[in-house]
Amino acid sequence: MKKTLIFIMLLTLALGNTIVAGDAGKPEGQVSVNAVRRSQVPRILPGNRAAFEVKAPEAKKVQLDLGRLYDMTRDDNGVWRCVTDSLMPGFHYYFLVVDGARVADPASESFFGCGVMASGLEVPYAEGDKRFELADVPHGEVVQRRYHSSVDNADKRMFIYTPPGYNSSTDRYPVLYLQHGGGEDERGWSQQGRTDIIMDNLIAQGKAVPMIIVMSDGNSRDFTEELIKECIPLVESNYRVIAGPEGRAIAGLSMGGIHALNAAITHPELFSNLGVFSSGWWATSAAPGGMGNDTEKYYDRIKKDTDYFNRQFRNVWISMGGKEDIAYNNCQVMMKRFDDLGLKYEYFETPGGHTWPVWRESLYRFAQRIFK
Amino acid sequence: MKKTLIFIMLLTLALGNTIVAGDAGKPEGQVSVNAVRRSQVPRILPGNRAAFEVKAPEAKKVQLDLGRLYDMTRDDNGVWRCVTDSLMPGFHYYFLVVDGARVADPASESFFGCGVMASGLEVPYAEGDKRFELADVPHGEVVQRRYHSSVDNADKRMFIYTPPGYNSSTDRYPVLYLQHGGGEDERGWSQQGRTDIIMDNLIAQGKAVPMIIVMSDGNSRDFTEELIKECIPLVESNYRVIAGPEGRAIAGLSMGGIHALNAAITHPELFSNLGVFSSGWWATSAAPGGMGNDTEKYYDRIKKDTDYFNRQFRNVWISMGGKEDIAYNNCQVMMKRFDDLGLKYEYFETPGGHTWPVWRESLYRFAQRIFK
Repeated sequence: MKKTLIFIMLLTLALGNTIVAGDAGKPEGQVSVNAVRRSQVPRILPGNRAAFEVKAPEAKKVQLDLGRLYDMTRDDNGVWRCVTDSLMPGFHYYFLVVDGARVADPASESFFGCGVMASGLEVPYAEGDKRFELADVPHGEVVQRRYHSSVDNADKRMFIYTPPGYNSSTDRYPVLYLQHGGGEDERGWSQQGRTDIIMDNLIAQGKAVPMIIVMSDGNSRDFTEELIKECIPLVESNYRVIAGPEGRAIAGLSMGGIHALNAAITHPELFSNLGVFSSGWWATSAAPGGMGNDTEKYYDRIKKDTDYFNRQFRNVWISMGGKEDIAYNNCQVMMKRFDDLGLKYEYFETPGGHTWPVWRESLYRFAQRIFK
Repeated sequence: MKKTLIFIMLLTLALGNTIVAGDAGKPEGQVSVNAVRRSQVPRILPGNRAAFEVKAPEAKKVQLDLGRLYDMTRDDNGVWRCVTDSLMPGFHYYFLVVDGARVADPASESFFGCGVMASGLEVPYAEGDKRFELADVPHGEVVQRRYHSSVDNADKRMFIYTPPGYNSSTDRYPVLYLQHGGGEDERGWSQQGRTDIIMDNLIAQGKAVPMIIVMSDGNSRDFTEELIKECIPLVESNYRVIAGPEGRAIAGLSMGGIHALNAAITHPELFSNLGVFSSGWWATSAAPGGMGNDTEKYYDRIKKDTDYFNRQFRNVWISMGGKEDIAYNNCQVMMKRFDDLGLKYEYFETPGGHTWPVWRESLYRFAQRIFK
């Protein structure tokens, strides 16, 4: 009898959440799409405010950390609550801080970001903006592939998006190598970034050509070496790809943008498209983690043969989340250097700072430009 | 300058953990394979004890919940620590309880289990036991496939393991439909269960035939209906499968074991193999969530044509995590009924209770029996 009880508890464990009630006693708003099954929180309230709850009966102080801190208020049952201001549509990392312990929200899905398993809040897009929403269109697949990295001497994995129709076709496809940011990993683009949803929608509308997207782990001793020695050969020997520069693009966000820059400038013969999202080489010589020390060497490399770079790269596309983006200054300095050297590029700016809403928008726009 | 500082913090966020020091001041043991990058905890100490740490400077009481509760002890810096007793090899769910808030450990990867994002501790297997460890053998792939369920009227997804060589072959493969337990979802078998690693190893050793494994979402209004209307047709029209009962097996753990039983007994014409791990029909009429109400109908169905069931099912394989398994009693009652009816089955018992170490072992053994 006791064993059955435990089993029932397992099945109903998440049912016990209390919920935000509106004036009529009915819960206000809608449950977040990232809330775990059966949880009624977080909720999205009118005006894109979000309501959070957590049970912490013995806690003295509980806060929500969503870039800015919100103090939560305790009720008589030990449930803490808060409601945010209006939030920007798209994905935002967040944490709960329970008596000084910064943790993921047990009511919500977790995502690897900020170097830990963080919570993610998905704020609805404007009515009619279906670019980043799962739609009734043909779906591609996301494939998890394990490999051994001789560069890191470690077993790693990559995720590979194949477009709708790939399995039943004999066509060859171009490939975009797409890098996550610092504190993230190979999961970032398909989970936080919704790469497959964005691409399924673009391809269904004829706005992007069907392509393969490779999302590998950029936490490497030498990203460029690993890309060339491990990732590209694995992809090109296991998938039907266009194996030449005309069929290869490389892009990344933040730290991944620096990876993409480094790989493309040292090996321009491999790529015809380069995307740099919310990034830019370090504008000072003292870059963290040893990154950026070779920056002057990269500018010299471009200077030696600017015409070749301008012919080779059909797209050098740089995006930025506005002045509030933490990489804004580095990016402006880099573009000034590109201008001085005569390297051609396109620049796109959208509000949102150094966040996933900006990076989804960047992929949405970059993917439409390449391989055409 | 402030922006660069934030960027550096993002990159180094997880570096600040303190660590368990041995007598010589050097950290004892090894970092858990599920610890997030750069974290030095949890650690596995000699004798398969595990050491945990969490920073919660303002907390009054912090505990580790690993099936049993361990009180953690605070140091002067607000870091709480504990060391467990010797643990069974394999995967175990756990939580931290910070002043009454039951949360995942920020130092470790999270897994969807117990209805929430739970932490998972991987305790090393015995020296020489490589059955469940990533090895230098050819790797298959795990594919994420989205689909619309007309049964649930919801967008869902499944994960599909394809064996090494699938991409470059024209062969057709048998398919095992493999179900997670209650409080888990379609991710359970590939993440907590290590399905791809277990199968890659078995296939490399010639112990199992190459097969496709479909891990779908069992949280359905009607699992059998969804399997037949959505999952099987999607798989059979998109993958090279042996599309007949001789090429289909169904198995599951706990709640998923009941799903597998229900589907196989109501549609024996579809399957030639049935696996039931740590499960059994409810032994009483009052099953939770409406499950099990049809149990007597299922026994009647078998009784009507026991010879047909015995011919149709080449394997009915039932496993149990010993007497401490919460499903032990239900399983014994069911097997007694099978005995009375003359339905043939094999039974396997291994210590470990209602846990993933038992279910990995069950898959390892069941996969070797089927499609031969």
